[in-house]
Amino acid sequence: MEIEVKFRIDFNQARAAIESLGADFVREELQEDLYFSLPPHELLRVRRISNLGRSFLTYKRIADPGRNEEFDEIEVEVSDFDGTVEILKRLGFREDIWIRKRRLVYRLDGVTFELNEVEGLGAFLDIEVISDNVEEAKRRIWEIAKRLGLTEDDVEPRLYQELIREGKGK
Amino acid sequence: MEIEVKFRIDFNQARAAIESLGADFVREELQEDLYFSLPPHELLRVRRISNLGRSFLTYKRIADPGRNEEFDEIEVEVSDFDGTVEILKRLGFREDIWIRKRRLVYRLDGVTFELNEVEGLGAFLDIEVISDNVEEAKRRIWEIAKRLGLTEDDVEPRLYQELIREGKGK
Repeated sequence: MEIEVKFRIDFNQARAAIESLGADFVREELQEDLYFSLPPHELLRVRRISNLGRSFLTYKRIADPGRNEEFDEIEVEVSDFDGTVEILKRLGFREDIWIRKRRLVYRLDGVTFELNEVEGLGAFLDIEVISDNVEEAKRRIWEIAKRLGLTEDDVEPRLYQELIREGKGK
Repeated sequence: MEIEVKFRIDFNQARAAIESLGADFVREELQEDLYFSLPPHELLRVRRISNLGRSFLTYKRIADPGRNEEFDEIEVEVSDFDGTVEILKRLGFREDIWIRKRRLVYRLDGVTFELNEVEGLGAFLDIEVISDNVEEAKRRIWEIAKRLGLTEDDVEPRLYQELIREGKGK
């Protein structure tokens, strides 16, 4: 299970705070995500990471709809973004929403920080732990979030797709 | 477009004939194919090539149902066979048929020879040309088939899935 909490942040301020915790910088990713229409609480995405020349096919089931912090995720790398999109279209899936972002990834003691600048929506920080122990994972996420000065008020529970659909960009 | 004609053959005899044409041996593949249920004339397959440690996701539309010689094919390599199968199942596709075969691939002047020993069904040779000119491709395939001593009587128009379903294995 992928457990993550998403916060609205100031990009540079959050970056400095994460670095001052001693987190390791892992990589930068320029992501282009194409989501397909699926029933509620399921996500189907093809992601191109243009600066790394890699693409991924991902299915997610949202285990806690509304809060959107717990995801049952299956992901495989694919050799070809366009071919994968074409296969899904042939299978009858409809393109829904594109999301483009710049992401910096940091890691500290099994916790992953994804610092995102999302086109049209602003800056967000995902703090993520992979674990089957949801309670323990959330405890660790919030322990670190507090050290970064983040509170429940900074949480953004909506998916990027929902934010784009609602036109709630800054 | 992928144009191919499938012949029932004697494996060793066909192999010797292909080699005596001067075709280049390309590789051996131990394939495990899982087909999912789709509407007629469409195929959805995840293939694991176990001896090479590679897997592929493939969608095919049969352009000439019944003869099954013309395929509109889209294929991407995937990092993980099981993950890809799991994603398709989550998307609602049902496992249909497994096909396991040993394949020797040869090539000569843009023509590909796939010499297959199919579990439960026997030996087959696919002679394949990738081209958008179907007539020209079939002319080339038949020119070579004749040099291998193959005739219209040796053609097997049914898909492996159909043969397995019909229980027509020898």
